[in-house]
Amino acid sequence: MDNVKAGIYGATGYTGYELATILWRHPQVEIVFATSLSYAGQSLRDIFPAGPDLPLVDPQEADAGSVDVVFLCLPHAASAATAVTALEAGAKVIDLSADFRLEDVGIYEQWYKVTHPAPQLLEEAVYGLTEFAREDLRGARLVANPGCYTTTALLALAPLVRAGSEVAGDIIVDAKSGVSGAGRKPTTNTLFVEVANNFSPYAIGRDHRHLPEMEQVIGWWHERPPRLIFSPHLLPVPRGILANIYVSGLEIWPESEVRALYDAAYSGEQFVDLLPAGELATLAHVTHTNKCVMSLTFAGQTLIITSALDNLVKGAAGQAVQNLNAMLGWPEELGLL
Amino acid sequence: MDNVKAGIYGATGYTGYELATILWRHPQVEIVFATSLSYAGQSLRDIFPAGPDLPLVDPQEADAGSVDVVFLCLPHAASAATAVTALEAGAKVIDLSADFRLEDVGIYEQWYKVTHPAPQLLEEAVYGLTEFAREDLRGARLVANPGCYTTTALLALAPLVRAGSEVAGDIIVDAKSGVSGAGRKPTTNTLFVEVANNFSPYAIGRDHRHLPEMEQVIGWWHERPPRLIFSPHLLPVPRGILANIYVSGLEIWPESEVRALYDAAYSGEQFVDLLPAGELATLAHVTHTNKCVMSLTFAGQTLIITSALDNLVKGAAGQAVQNLNAMLGWPEELGLL
Amino acid sequence: MDNVKAGIYGATGYTGYELATILWRHPQVEIVFATSLSYAGQSLRDIFPAGPDLPLVDPQEADAGSVDVVFLCLPHAASAATAVTALEAGAKVIDLSADFRLEDVGIYEQWYKVTHPAPQLLEEAVYGLTEFAREDLRGARLVANPGCYTTTALLALAPLVRAGSEVAGDIIVDAKSGVSGAGRKPTTNTLFVEVANNFSPYAIGRDHRHLPEMEQVIGWWHERPPRLIFSPHLLPVPRGILANIYVSGLEIWPESEVRALYDAAYSGEQFVDLLPAGELATLAHVTHTNKCVMSLTFAGQTLIITSALDNLVKGAAGQAVQNLNAMLGWPEELGLL
Amino acid sequence: MDNVKAGIYGATGYTGYELATILWRHPQVEIVFATSLSYAGQSLRDIFPAGPDLPLVDPQEADAGSVDVVFLCLPHAASAATAVTALEAGAKVIDLSADFRLEDVGIYEQWYKVTHPAPQLLEEAVYGLTEFAREDLRGARLVANPGCYTTTALLALAPLVRAGSEVAGDIIVDAKSGVSGAGRKPTTNTLFVEVANNFSPYAIGRDHRHLPEMEQVIGWWHERPPRLIFSPHLLPVPRGILANIYVSGLEIWPESEVRALYDAAYSGEQFVDLLPAGELATLAHVTHTNKCVMSLTFAGQTLIITSALDNLVKGAAGQAVQNLNAMLGWPEELGLL
Repeated sequence: MDNVKAGIYGATGYTGYELATILWRHPQVEIVFATSLSYAGQSLRDIFPAGPDLPLVDPQEADAGSVDVVFLCLPHAASAATAVTALEAGAKVIDLSADFRLEDVGIYEQWYKVTHPAPQLLEEAVYGLTEFAREDLRGARLVANPGCYTTTALLALAPLVRAGSEVAGDIIVDAKSGVSGAGRKPTTNTLFVEVANNFSPYAIGRDHRHLPEMEQVIGWWHERPPRLIFSPHLLPVPRGILANIYVSGLEIWPESEVRALYDAAYSGEQFVDLLPAGELATLAHVTHTNKCVMSLTFAGQTLIITSALDNLVKGAAGQAVQNLNAMLGWPEELGLL
Repeated sequence: MDNVKAGIYGATGYTGYELATILWRHPQVEIVFATSLSYAGQSLRDIFPAGPDLPLVDPQEADAGSVDVVFLCLPHAASAATAVTALEAGAKVIDLSADFRLEDVGIYEQWYKVTHPAPQLLEEAVYGLTEFAREDLRGARLVANPGCYTTTALLALAPLVRAGSEVAGDIIVDAKSGVSGAGRKPTTNTLFVEVANNFSPYAIGRDHRHLPEMEQVIGWWHERPPRLIFSPHLLPVPRGILANIYVSGLEIWPESEVRALYDAAYSGEQFVDLLPAGELATLAHVTHTNKCVMSLTFAGQTLIITSALDNLVKGAAGQAVQNLNAMLGWPEELGLL
Repeated sequence: MDNVKAGIYGATGYTGYELATILWRHPQVEIVFATSLSYAGQSLRDIFPAGPDLPLVDPQEADAGSVDVVFLCLPHAASAATAVTALEAGAKVIDLSADFRLEDVGIYEQWYKVTHPAPQLLEEAVYGLTEFAREDLRGARLVANPGCYTTTALLALAPLVRAGSEVAGDIIVDAKSGVSGAGRKPTTNTLFVEVANNFSPYAIGRDHRHLPEMEQVIGWWHERPPRLIFSPHLLPVPRGILANIYVSGLEIWPESEVRALYDAAYSGEQFVDLLPAGELATLAHVTHTNKCVMSLTFAGQTLIITSALDNLVKGAAGQAVQNLNAMLGWPEELGLL
Repeated sequence: MDNVKAGIYGATGYTGYELATILWRHPQVEIVFATSLSYAGQSLRDIFPAGPDLPLVDPQEADAGSVDVVFLCLPHAASAATAVTALEAGAKVIDLSADFRLEDVGIYEQWYKVTHPAPQLLEEAVYGLTEFAREDLRGARLVANPGCYTTTALLALAPLVRAGSEVAGDIIVDAKSGVSGAGRKPTTNTLFVEVANNFSPYAIGRDHRHLPEMEQVIGWWHERPPRLIFSPHLLPVPRGILANIYVSGLEIWPESEVRALYDAAYSGEQFVDLLPAGELATLAHVTHTNKCVMSLTFAGQTLIITSALDNLVKGAAGQAVQNLNAMLGWPEELGLL
């Protein structure tokens, strides 16, 4: 098991920083470069004072040809453009932006309001929801790392939807995210004074960009895929996502069979925990870990799946490293415990 | 309009304190006594340093016969026992506990696990959801102030349910509350270190005591009342409740008619605001006010009513004062602006 | 006592908004206009959802000639330029920026790195530390509202310094401020994710702009003014300042005489509270009030004055309104209780 | 380097939990037992959901004879009593309580208001401020782990005081701590609602129990030890201590010599970082690490040492493990990176 040389594009956003700290401790990875447009010439520690002493270079000075794999923590569109260059230089690419998540370029361009810089790569890209993509990940050249909300919802729904169960009506995903999910670019909405003591929904219903991503994957899994209602909220915490997912009309199954589906799907998974009946998932279960923790509650005709993860780890950088490990055939937990 | 003499039982919990500060500024109310078991002999300002300089007396030393009205901010069961005494002494009673909210003593005893100390008063008690109880409140002797979560949900559902509209499936109430809703008695769960950076559901599904209260009122309003799924959460803020309420199967109505129902119900209400389309209710709309602010979102077959209020004001002490004003035929906003 | 017409320049920063909410409730003030460069055409409520429904106009469209007084909540330099226009139009001016606080234009230009737009007005400007400026305020045309940290420190030191007591060594002001003190312009440093769970000093020693302001006033009060060491910090709360002020070498006085000085200075003041021995000032004493609350602790040879206020109220908008009241000979508490 | 068997007494307080998570990952330590009075029979993960799955036993069932070392995270007095038993059973003891920190039993009993259960052990106990106790730690049988505030102040003052420099007047330690420092026992003062949005000093001057501990060690280091003024505060964050330490009357030394003292003391230390001039220590430098980070600011005649650490790690459990490593002659960073 040889060491791998890695480059990070966009190391000074919250996701990029989280990724850098994980890779810094990864026993088989050597970080060859980390880029930053704004802070080139400084150390990552100058920006995040508890961070590693990692020099930051201008992306123009980074040589993708000098590494085995690059991680892209860039804004959408910028990410795809860099992916093209990196692939041409011979590096594998794990893209944490949205650029290769949607297989239909039309849907991408409708939701992201840009022309896709590299639609020719969409078919090749592997959608890296690790637990359900291992075979495709092995040896992949280009991986689309799923969105944070999307990971929370898909891991919660996968056992049910993949079993082909029929759902009456919309599935409701009421989700709450810590503020790091909004990125590190200064905006009024994410100022301390605006967020503290507040709690606010945004883009609820069918308006958030992670919705088509969720529905795309559910469409892969089910012949008559249910429709989702997705309500994201800004939570006054730095990190973590917790969602309640309401599925109605499951009366044909007893609880024990639903629970058995989840046990079967996740009992062998080290990064997905199903809590015993009576215990509910919280952010305290997951922050600063690569875990998705979920609990099942049965009430009336409704199943409530409570699903929690750390948006920066299992929802982004941690899953990206898990995908790297899977691509290389390494134990998935390397660098993640 | 003569001044009214008031007594407060239980002034050093969060609700009692909020009530004391409102009544202290109320132009027509004189606080004659405020009780505290733990802090008798001190001033309210010793406990809450920005509070009024109001002496605290032992409940044994408070004379309900010396006031026109008492407010009960006591634990359940203790509250009903005090209500009996106060009514006998000739005072009107506004009870902020759960003791007189449920008309069926069996349901009360099942959920609260105590024998009701005064079931004979249940029939007389007026359920004080002010906007829908004005006629009954006028001249009432005993008012049951609704629960905080209950108020959030009922104000959100009233226009729809009272119009008799049919709902397919369960109505889902995904609600999040600030920590003051858990009271001021020290518990591990409400310590700063446990709550900060966390977000946690509790008693979700059909397990929380406010559920039978919500369903009771909905039963008053609708012949075939829908069932509720109610998911409360602890939010890392001191105060405020925000709930998303999901109602499915309303396809028979166009959006405009639903919105018209809400306009009709609330356009004349000074303490219930319906936001224009495109703006979503947040805690910032309501904290430290007596308002319930709501927004309507239509998505697929689902109506999402987002409803927010301050659990200590419109969800407790503010609504109690609004009820006092209504009982006495005063303008409801007295002391509340 | 005729009503006064007021205009607010810069109503959508945190100070401007706080001022607008205070003036909105002031019984003798009518807000004629409120300006905003970024939000002209909207209502203040669109920006601050619990705020008053006050239309925002472009500063170019505001007519200072139509009001009796203008409040300037603008960046420095912009403020002085507007002051000139407003005074020429016949309005009185209360400036909440730093532009008229320093009597020496050279010191101003050294600390604020701009050319002063109106040095000719410096002599006329009254430094509005209300409790010690009443005579000068009465009838004043131009008032410089003190800085928030400055008010915290000066109210704490005034009784001691004005009594002429000698101090050995530097006076140390270790001060902590809520994040609203940094303004509402988005910066990385004031993002929720950066501030939550953190606590950080900045510009400590003799580097902060409020230092020369503090020393200027102490120089007015004392023949051999002591030097200050001033250490500001960013506190993870939205509002409030608390400072510990350490004065050494007071062994010649017994505690009782020091306390008597403070009692004499503040026993008649409704907005400055001296706590009894044994009780320490906290932010909970002052947030959302116009009070400065302080406590005295004697330890070894050192007197510790703990001084707290709300940076947006007594440290800015509240003191500005108190100054307005003083200028007009009104009771100082009008609109502030 | 053989593995060491360890027992933890009191694993469910914040310090005990932090210690358990560190030892759980320590490559050379095996946790044989972890005790809890309240939660015996459960797993540590039941109490702290992201924690290790470590069974909790009643302290009566723990056998100190079965381990090489015990860590005591117990209340004072209880701790010393357990230390006696453990030493008799042949285990080494690292005590995180205050019981063996003060060499003078009279001072201990005056500040802690209890009779010391084992004064005969005081002389043997090694005061474990690791960086200055290595020789004594090697092979020690009983270690007193320093207090969290004490560590913050002593590491900041050590280079200066140990060099014998004279100080005019009191040294001022203005310190702020996260809430975990107050422990996990529920109290009103540490409830979320009381702490959030607040900031409060307590026991300032010469009233806090860590003061005699600081002065004892300074007395070991200096012939004419300066007196301290110590002002602790409760900061609305879960963890972290930051202190400003003001030392006056150092005019005889140029800055460069003071800085050289600190460089000499700490340039070889991996857990004490001296920041370059111009950068100030913050909590973000230290939380979740075993580091003490400090910065020096020179202002007028005053040196300001800003010193920060994580109260649960370098201020408690981390330093305890560093002491274990030092006792056994292991690299001090084992388990701490």
